[in-house]
Amino acid sequence: MLIRKATDKDQEAIWEIAREVIATAEGLVFYPDSSKEKMLDFWCNPKRHVYVTEIEGEVLGTYFLCDNQPDMGSHVANGGYMTHPKAGGKGIGYAMGEHSIEEARRLGYRSMQFNIVFKSNERAVRLWQKLGFEIVGELPEVVDLPNLGLTNAYVMWRRV
Amino acid sequence: MLIRKATDKDQEAIWEIAREVIATAEGLVFYPDSSKEKMLDFWCNPKRHVYVTEIEGEVLGTYFLCDNQPDMGSHVANGGYMTHPKAGGKGIGYAMGEHSIEEARRLGYRSMQFNIVFKSNERAVRLWQKLGFEIVGELPEVVDLPNLGLTNAYVMWRRV
Repeated sequence: MLIRKATDKDQEAIWEIAREVIATAEGLVFYPDSSKEKMLDFWCNPKRHVYVTEIEGEVLGTYFLCDNQPDMGSHVANGGYMTHPKAGGKGIGYAMGEHSIEEARRLGYRSMQFNIVFKSNERAVRLWQKLGFEIVGELPEVVDLPNLGLTNAYVMWRRV
Repeated sequence: MLIRKATDKDQEAIWEIAREVIATAEGLVFYPDSSKEKMLDFWCNPKRHVYVTEIEGEVLGTYFLCDNQPDMGSHVANGGYMTHPKAGGKGIGYAMGEHSIEEARRLGYRSMQFNIVFKSNERAVRLWQKLGFEIVGELPEVVDLPNLGLTNAYVMWRRV
Protein backbone atom coordinates (compact mmCIF):
# COMPACT_ATOMS: atom_id res chain seq x y z
CA MET A 1 0.00 0.00 0.00
CA LEU A 2 1.34 3.41 -1.01
CA ILE A 3 -0.07 6.69 0.32
CA ARG A 4 1.12 9.75 -1.60
CA LYS A 5 0.12 13.31 -2.53
CA ALA A 6 -2.55 13.41 -5.22
CA THR A 7 -1.85 15.00 -8.60
CA ASP A 8 -4.18 16.24 -11.33
CA LYS A 9 -3.88 12.82 -12.92
CA ASP A 10 -5.68 11.26 -9.95
CA GLN A 11 -8.92 13.17 -10.48
CA GLU A 12 -10.67 10.42 -12.45
CA ALA A 13 -9.83 7.86 -9.78
CA ILE A 14 -10.95 10.20 -7.00
CA TRP A 15 -14.26 10.78 -8.77
CA GLU A 16 -14.68 7.02 -9.26
CA ILE A 17 -14.24 6.51 -5.50
CA ALA A 18 -16.49 9.45 -4.62
CA ARG A 19 -19.29 8.20 -6.89
CA GLU A 20 -19.27 4.79 -5.25
CA VAL A 21 -19.01 6.21 -1.73
CA ILE A 22 -21.83 8.75 -2.04
CA ALA A 23 -24.01 6.06 -3.64
CA THR A 24 -24.01 4.28 -0.27
CA ALA A 25 -25.13 7.46 1.61
CA GLU A 26 -23.40 6.08 4.68
CA GLY A 27 -20.58 8.47 5.42
CA LEU A 28 -20.64 11.72 3.44
CA VAL A 29 -23.38 14.38 3.42
CA PHE A 30 -23.45 14.66 -0.38
CA TYR A 31 -26.51 13.45 -2.23
CA PRO A 32 -25.92 10.07 -3.93
CA ASP A 33 -26.44 11.65 -7.37
CA SER A 34 -23.98 14.52 -6.87
CA SER A 35 -22.05 15.45 -10.02
CA LYS A 36 -18.40 14.84 -10.77
CA GLU A 37 -17.75 18.57 -10.95
CA LYS A 38 -19.30 19.23 -7.54
CA MET A 39 -17.45 16.39 -5.86
CA LEU A 40 -14.07 17.29 -7.34
CA ASP A 41 -14.60 20.99 -6.51
CA PHE A 42 -15.23 19.91 -2.93
CA TRP A 43 -12.51 17.30 -2.56
CA CYS A 44 -9.68 18.79 -4.59
CA ASN A 45 -10.10 22.50 -4.00
CA PRO A 46 -6.88 24.54 -3.72
CA LYS A 47 -7.21 25.00 0.06
CA ARG A 48 -6.72 21.28 0.60
CA HIS A 49 -3.86 18.85 0.92
CA VAL A 50 -5.08 15.82 -0.99
CA TYR A 51 -3.64 12.31 -0.78
CA VAL A 52 -4.39 9.00 -2.48
CA THR A 53 -3.77 5.40 -1.54
CA GLU A 54 -2.63 2.95 -4.18
CA ILE A 55 -2.55 -0.82 -4.07
CA GLU A 56 -0.68 -2.40 -6.97
CA GLY A 57 -0.92 0.86 -8.89
CA GLU A 58 -4.68 1.22 -8.43
CA VAL A 59 -5.99 4.25 -6.51
CA LEU A 60 -8.49 2.89 -4.00
CA GLY A 61 -8.58 5.53 -1.28
CA THR A 62 -8.21 9.27 -0.84
CA TYR A 63 -8.19 11.78 1.96
CA PHE A 64 -7.71 15.51 2.43
CA LEU A 65 -6.59 17.83 5.19
CA CYS A 66 -7.45 21.52 5.46
CA ASP A 67 -7.91 24.25 8.06
CA ASN A 68 -11.13 23.62 9.95
CA GLN A 69 -11.59 27.35 10.62
CA PRO A 70 -9.71 30.43 9.41
CA ASP A 71 -7.15 32.47 11.37
CA MET A 72 -7.45 31.88 15.14
CA GLY A 73 -8.94 28.46 14.42
CA SER A 74 -6.48 27.47 11.69
CA HIS A 75 -4.30 25.33 13.98
CA VAL A 76 -7.04 22.68 13.84
CA ALA A 77 -7.11 20.42 10.79
CA ASN A 78 -10.26 19.05 9.29
CA GLY A 79 -10.07 15.85 7.27
CA GLY A 80 -12.19 13.81 4.89
CA TYR A 81 -11.61 10.17 3.91
CA MET A 82 -13.01 7.81 1.28
CA THR A 83 -12.20 4.21 0.45
CA HIS A 84 -13.61 2.55 -2.65
CA PRO A 85 -16.33 0.16 -1.38
CA LYS A 86 -14.81 -2.69 -3.39
CA ALA A 87 -11.59 -2.32 -1.36
CA GLY A 88 -13.11 -2.61 2.11
CA GLY A 89 -11.38 -4.77 4.73
CA LYS A 90 -7.86 -4.06 3.49
CA GLY A 91 -7.06 -1.57 6.23
CA ILE A 92 -6.98 1.39 3.84
CA GLY A 93 -9.08 3.59 6.17
CA TYR A 94 -6.87 2.86 9.15
CA ALA A 95 -3.70 3.46 7.14
CA MET A 96 -4.99 6.79 5.81
CA GLY A 97 -6.07 7.79 9.32
CA GLU A 98 -2.59 7.13 10.71
CA HIS A 99 -0.96 8.83 7.73
CA SER A 100 -3.17 11.91 8.10
CA ILE A 101 -2.31 12.32 11.78
CA GLU A 102 1.37 12.31 10.87
CA GLU A 103 0.78 14.71 7.99
CA ALA A 104 -1.28 17.06 10.16
CA ARG A 105 1.61 17.16 12.65
CA ARG A 106 4.13 17.74 9.87
CA LEU A 107 2.02 20.58 8.43
CA GLY A 108 2.04 22.30 11.81
CA TYR A 109 -1.50 21.60 12.98
CA ARG A 110 -2.08 21.16 16.72
CA SER A 111 -5.19 19.01 16.55
CA MET A 112 -7.71 17.45 14.18
CA GLN A 113 -11.47 17.73 14.19
CA PHE A 114 -14.20 15.92 12.25
CA ASN A 115 -17.38 17.96 12.20
CA ILE A 116 -19.98 15.44 11.13
CA VAL A 117 -19.31 11.73 11.70
CA PHE A 118 -22.67 10.01 11.24
CA LYS A 119 -23.59 8.14 14.42
CA SER A 120 -25.03 5.40 12.22
CA ASN A 121 -21.63 4.92 10.58
CA GLU A 122 -20.46 2.72 13.44
CA ARG A 123 -17.42 1.37 11.62
CA ALA A 124 -16.08 4.88 11.08
CA VAL A 125 -16.76 5.89 14.70
CA ARG A 126 -14.86 2.81 15.94
CA LEU A 127 -12.01 3.46 13.51
CA TRP A 128 -11.55 7.04 14.71
CA GLN A 129 -11.74 6.00 18.35
CA LYS A 130 -9.09 3.35 17.70
CA LEU A 131 -6.96 6.13 16.20
CA GLY A 132 -7.27 8.25 19.33
CA PHE A 133 -10.16 10.52 18.43
CA GLU A 134 -12.68 11.37 21.14
CA ILE A 135 -16.34 12.18 20.73
CA VAL A 136 -16.55 15.80 21.91
CA GLY A 137 -20.09 16.51 20.79
CA GLU A 138 -23.28 14.84 19.58
CA LEU A 139 -25.30 16.88 17.09
CA PRO A 140 -29.00 16.06 17.08
CA GLU A 141 -30.67 15.22 13.75
CA VAL A 142 -28.09 17.01 11.60
CA VAL A 143 -28.00 14.40 8.85
CA ASP A 144 -31.06 13.49 6.79
CA LEU A 145 -30.32 10.02 5.40
CA PRO A 146 -32.41 8.40 2.65
CA ASN A 147 -32.93 5.21 4.65
CA LEU A 148 -32.79 6.40 8.30
CA GLY A 149 -34.16 9.94 8.11
CA LEU A 150 -32.91 12.51 10.61
CA THR A 151 -29.84 11.08 12.28
CA ASN A 152 -27.35 12.33 14.89
CA ALA A 153 -23.69 12.93 14.16
CA TYR A 154 -20.59 13.20 16.29
CA VAL A 155 -17.90 15.82 16.43
CA MET A 156 -14.60 13.97 16.95
CA TRP A 157 -11.28 15.48 17.96
CA ARG A 158 -7.71 14.60 18.87
CA ARG A 159 -4.46 16.40 19.53
CA VAL A 160 -1.71 15.64 16.99
CA MET B 1 -35.07 48.96 15.94
CA LEU B 2 -35.48 47.67 12.38
CA ILE B 3 -34.10 44.34 11.17
CA ARG B 4 -34.13 43.95 7.39
CA LYS B 5 -32.38 42.16 4.52
CA ALA B 6 -29.02 43.72 3.70
CA THR B 7 -28.38 45.30 0.31
CA ASP B 8 -25.14 46.17 -1.49
CA LYS B 9 -25.43 49.64 0.02
CA ASP B 10 -24.90 48.18 3.50
CA GLN B 11 -21.42 46.85 2.79
CA GLU B 12 -19.56 49.86 4.22
CA ALA B 13 -21.56 49.67 7.44
CA ILE B 14 -21.05 45.90 7.69
CA TRP B 15 -17.31 46.35 7.26
CA GLU B 16 -17.31 49.11 9.91
CA ILE B 17 -18.99 46.72 12.36
CA ALA B 18 -16.73 43.80 11.41
CA ARG B 19 -13.57 45.89 11.87
CA GLU B 20 -14.60 46.91 15.39
CA VAL B 21 -15.75 43.41 16.32
CA ILE B 22 -12.65 41.56 15.13
CA ALA B 23 -10.48 44.19 16.86
CA THR B 24 -11.80 42.85 20.19
CA ALA B 25 -10.87 39.22 19.28
CA GLU B 26 -13.67 38.08 21.58
CA GLY B 27 -16.19 36.39 19.35
CA LEU B 28 -15.04 35.74 15.78
CA VAL B 29 -12.09 33.62 14.65
CA PHE B 30 -10.77 36.23 12.22
CA TYR B 31 -7.49 37.95 13.01
CA PRO B 32 -8.00 41.51 14.31
CA ASP B 33 -6.19 42.95 11.27
CA SER B 34 -8.24 41.07 8.65
CA SER B 35 -8.93 43.09 5.51
CA LYS B 36 -12.21 44.59 4.37
CA GLU B 37 -12.20 42.39 1.28
CA LYS B 38 -11.72 39.20 3.28
CA MET B 39 -14.40 40.06 5.81
CA LEU B 40 -16.98 41.08 3.20
CA ASP B 41 -16.19 37.97 1.12
CA PHE B 42 -16.89 35.93 4.22
CA TRP B 43 -19.95 37.74 5.54
CA CYS B 44 -21.74 38.72 2.33
CA ASN B 45 -20.99 35.79 0.05
CA PRO B 46 -23.78 34.71 -2.31
CA LYS B 47 -24.58 31.55 -0.32
CA ARG B 48 -25.77 33.63 2.61
CA HIS B 49 -28.92 35.40 3.70
CA VAL B 50 -27.61 38.64 5.21
CA TYR B 51 -29.56 40.97 7.49
CA VAL B 52 -28.80 44.29 9.16
CA THR B 53 -30.22 46.03 12.22
CA GLU B 54 -30.82 49.77 12.11
CA ILE B 55 -31.49 52.14 14.95
CA GLU B 56 -32.55 55.61 13.82
CA GLY B 57 -31.23 54.89 10.35
CA GLU B 58 -27.80 53.76 11.53
CA VAL B 59 -26.73 50.15 10.82
CA LEU B 60 -25.38 48.80 14.11
CA GLY B 61 -25.77 45.05 13.79
CA THR B 62 -25.71 42.34 11.16
CA TYR B 63 -26.25 38.62 10.94
CA PHE B 64 -26.29 35.91 8.31
CA LEU B 65 -27.86 32.50 7.84
CA CYS B 66 -26.59 29.77 5.53
CA ASP B 67 -26.57 26.00 5.17
CA ASN B 68 -24.26 24.53 7.79
CA GLN B 69 -23.49 21.53 5.54
CA PRO B 70 -24.41 20.71 1.94
CA ASP B 71 -27.12 18.29 0.79
CA MET B 72 -28.11 15.83 3.53
CA GLY B 73 -26.99 18.38 6.12
CA SER B 74 -28.58 21.42 4.47
CA HIS B 75 -31.67 21.42 6.72
CA VAL B 76 -29.46 22.85 9.47
CA ALA B 77 -28.76 26.59 9.38
CA ASN B 78 -25.53 28.12 10.51
CA GLY B 79 -25.54 31.73 11.64
CA GLY B 80 -23.10 34.53 12.42
CA TYR B 81 -23.88 37.72 14.37
CA MET B 82 -22.10 41.01 15.01
CA THR B 83 -23.13 44.10 16.94
CA HIS B 84 -21.07 47.28 16.79
CA PRO B 85 -19.26 47.49 20.17
CA LYS B 86 -20.49 51.07 20.62
CA ALA B 87 -24.08 49.79 20.54
CA GLY B 88 -23.80 47.16 23.28
CA GLY B 89 -26.56 46.86 25.89
CA LYS B 90 -29.37 47.85 23.50
CA GLY B 91 -30.62 44.32 23.02
CA ILE B 92 -29.50 44.17 19.38
CA GLY B 93 -27.95 40.71 19.80
CA TYR B 94 -31.06 39.27 21.39
CA ALA B 95 -33.31 40.85 18.76
CA MET B 96 -31.19 39.48 15.91
CA GLY B 97 -31.15 36.06 17.57
CA GLU B 98 -34.94 35.97 17.78
CA HIS B 99 -35.28 37.31 14.24
CA SER B 100 -32.87 34.71 12.88
CA ILE B 101 -34.77 31.83 14.47
CA GLU B 102 -37.95 33.07 12.77
CA GLU B 103 -36.13 33.55 9.48
CA ALA B 104 -34.52 30.11 9.67
CA ARG B 105 -38.00 28.60 10.14
CA ARG B 106 -39.41 30.68 7.28
CA LEU B 107 -36.55 29.59 5.01
CA GLY B 108 -37.38 25.94 5.70
CA TYR B 109 -34.52 25.00 8.01
CA ARG B 110 -35.24 22.43 10.73
CA SER B 111 -32.59 23.50 13.22
CA MET B 112 -29.70 25.91 13.76
CA GLN B 113 -26.14 25.17 14.76
CA PHE B 114 -23.25 27.39 15.82
CA ASN B 115 -19.95 25.63 15.28
CA ILE B 116 -17.54 27.68 17.34
CA VAL B 117 -18.89 29.78 20.22
CA PHE B 118 -15.85 30.75 22.30
CA LYS B 119 -16.27 29.47 25.85
CA SER B 120 -14.62 32.69 27.02
CA ASN B 121 -17.38 34.72 25.35
CA GLU B 122 -19.70 34.21 28.30
CA ARG B 123 -22.16 36.88 27.28
CA ALA B 124 -22.73 35.19 23.93
CA VAL B 125 -23.10 31.74 25.53
CA ARG B 126 -25.72 33.08 27.95
CA LEU B 127 -27.52 34.90 25.15
CA TRP B 128 -27.81 31.75 23.05
CA GLN B 129 -28.93 29.69 26.02
CA LYS B 130 -31.61 32.29 26.77
CA LEU B 131 -32.72 31.91 23.14
CA GLY B 132 -33.10 28.15 23.51
CA PHE B 133 -29.76 26.90 22.20
CA GLU B 134 -28.15 23.97 23.97
CA ILE B 135 -24.46 23.21 24.27
CA VAL B 136 -24.11 19.94 22.35
CA GLY B 137 -20.31 19.79 22.29
CA GLU B 138 -17.20 21.30 23.79
CA LEU B 139 -14.22 21.53 21.45
CA PRO B 140 -10.86 21.53 23.23
CA GLU B 141 -8.37 24.30 22.41
CA VAL B 142 -9.85 25.10 19.00
CA VAL B 143 -9.44 28.88 19.29
CA ASP B 144 -6.07 30.54 19.73
CA LEU B 145 -6.84 33.95 21.24
CA PRO B 146 -4.23 36.74 21.48
CA ASN B 147 -4.86 37.27 25.19
CA LEU B 148 -5.95 33.82 26.42
CA GLY B 149 -4.09 31.43 24.11
CA LEU B 150 -5.69 28.08 23.28
CA THR B 151 -9.31 28.22 24.37
CA ASN B 152 -12.27 25.85 24.19
CA ALA B 153 -15.38 26.52 22.17
CA TYR B 154 -18.92 25.22 22.25
CA VAL B 155 -21.10 23.80 19.53
CA MET B 156 -24.62 25.09 20.17
CA TRP B 157 -27.84 23.86 18.58
CA ARG B 158 -31.61 24.26 18.67
CA ARG B 159 -34.60 23.09 16.68
CA VAL B 160 -36.50 25.88 14.86
